Amino acid sequence: MSTQGSGAPIDASGAVPAPIGVFDSGVGGLTVLRALRDALPAEDFIYLGDTARLPYGTKSPETVERYSLQCAEALWVRGIRCLVVACNTASAFSLDALRRRYPDIPVIGVIEPGAAAAVAVSGSQHIAVIGTEATIAAGAYQAAIQRLNGAARVTAAPCSLFVAMAEEGWIEGPIAEAVAHRYLDPIFSATAPAAPAAEVPDTLVLGCTHFPALAAVLRRVLPVTVHIVDSAATTAAAVARRLPARTGSGHTQGTVRWLATDGAARFARVSGIFLGTTLRVGDIEIIDL
Amino acid sequence: MSTQGSGAPIDASGAVPAPIGVFDSGVGGLTVLRALRDALPAEDFIYLGDTARLPYGTKSPETVERYSLQCAEALWVRGIRCLVVACNTASAFSLDALRRRYPDIPVIGVIEPGAAAAVAVSGSQHIAVIGTEATIAAGAYQAAIQRLNGAARVTAAPCSLFVAMAEEGWIEGPIAEAVAHRYLDPIFSATAPAAPAAEVPDTLVLGCTHFPALAAVLRRVLPVTVHIVDSAATTAAAVARRLPARTGSGHTQGTVRWLATDGAARFARVSGIFLGTTLRVGDIEIIDL
Repeated sequence: MSTQGSGAPIDASGAVPAPIGVFDSGVGGLTVLRALRDALPAEDFIYLGDTARLPYGTKSPETVERYSLQCAEALWVRGIRCLVVACNTASAFSLDALRRRYPDIPVIGVIEPGAAAAVAVSGSQHIAVIGTEATIAAGAYQAAIQRLNGAARVTAAPCSLFVAMAEEGWIEGPIAEAVAHRYLDPIFSATAPAAPAAEVPDTLVLGCTHFPALAAVLRRVLPVTVHIVDSAATTAAAVARRLPARTGSGHTQGTVRWLATDGAARFARVSGIFLGTTLRVGDIEIIDL
Repeated sequence: MSTQGSGAPIDASGAVPAPIGVFDSGVGGLTVLRALRDALPAEDFIYLGDTARLPYGTKSPETVERYSLQCAEALWVRGIRCLVVACNTASAFSLDALRRRYPDIPVIGVIEPGAAAAVAVSGSQHIAVIGTEATIAAGAYQAAIQRLNGAARVTAAPCSLFVAMAEEGWIEGPIAEAVAHRYLDPIFSATAPAAPAAEVPDTLVLGCTHFPALAAVLRRVLPVTVHIVDSAATTAAAVARRLPARTGSGHTQGTVRWLATDGAARFARVSGIFLGTTLRVGDIEIIDL
């Protein structure tokens, strides 16, 4: 298969396994890809950023589902053995449809792993979730947490400006701190020391793939006792659990094929904030959906 | 024509004139519509917000042109006698194509009127322009200003966070001021009093339709001598000049038909920030492009 990188591990039959497909509405999902590569360094990946149509966060459920099916199909026709939906909005609205369309491969979103990690780590079972408007309005994290523990309490809040700040690279400094305080102080009631403990969440789920870029500033703004759950890392762990154990060399670095629907120059420039390394424009193939 | 509002003035022939079509990538163009209704209160309008595909500011020129032609066609088939492109990115990339496609009606963008107003008002002919990444990168304001005065100097800077701030309604207060300072202080060098006068622009063009929502905070942050050119008001004046003089009652309030490509609830909720009055969800018709 021409899209295979030469670094892929060889399985017991000698065949080169297909890569893992990852899609997002844009560049934020690169935080998930980064976590996946850390967890599964020998795997090959195809990443698709639907940059022509970002953000999904302000679109209707029907539109998000339609776009997600188109993204998944673009990965499927290139040959994948697992599909990771690295976009909270798409995970909220599209997982059922994607699992029906591709019943033979694992389809893993970012919401269920994040919800499971939050329930596992929270002592009080009062969990805060922040994300885009659509993710929060869809209530998918809230529902996923309460499926795991019906007695859990969830405080959810949209933090739209964090997306623009992360893409601008304003991930440190007084403005980032002021914006974080404005969004988070009302949730964590730092000014209400007399509040009963259960009134204040002890766990914060970063329910948008852009937000791990702001992790340092969020850590400073939050009470020290609050656990931060990064959906990127928890999703990568969930993918690692779902894939069959591999034989062959596990030490070869896998490859990534980069697809986007528009704006290779911007994709490359912004990639560094989320991926940790900056791509070259020539690395990115533009496709039409 | 069934889409005509009853408030339209009747021209000399007795026919009800077609409305003015206005499109934007989303809700920001409502600042232009508001200025148009102030300038032409008896006119009927059709406003189309391409909310399913916003923002245009991060998309490629080819994609923006294609989307603009689709928006214009959706207005054209409903009957319009003038087309206003109330989106800076679409004005930067699509005016030529739109004028070729619709040679029989005036097609007016927001860039040329803003550029003309800036050249008219600036004493030093050193003009600053702020907008989205794509508007600034396209250089359309810079080119339009220099077509009018080849000796003019233009300092242009993208201010992406202003869009998210306006949509969030954070248009006043310390965060809005801090962000405005971060973007504008380097341009207006308030900390460099010894700089020669020509080094500091004396005029600021708000090259994004979202930015008039932030006018009050920008006014406070800028040196008092800086002129602010609001593209919405200047575009409305340009449209008023292009339309034939009307006979008939000019005192009847015209109507607006509202179209969007997605998310009527969000469109209605955010409308108040840009339009001054808040729409009801039922006022907005969702169409597919």
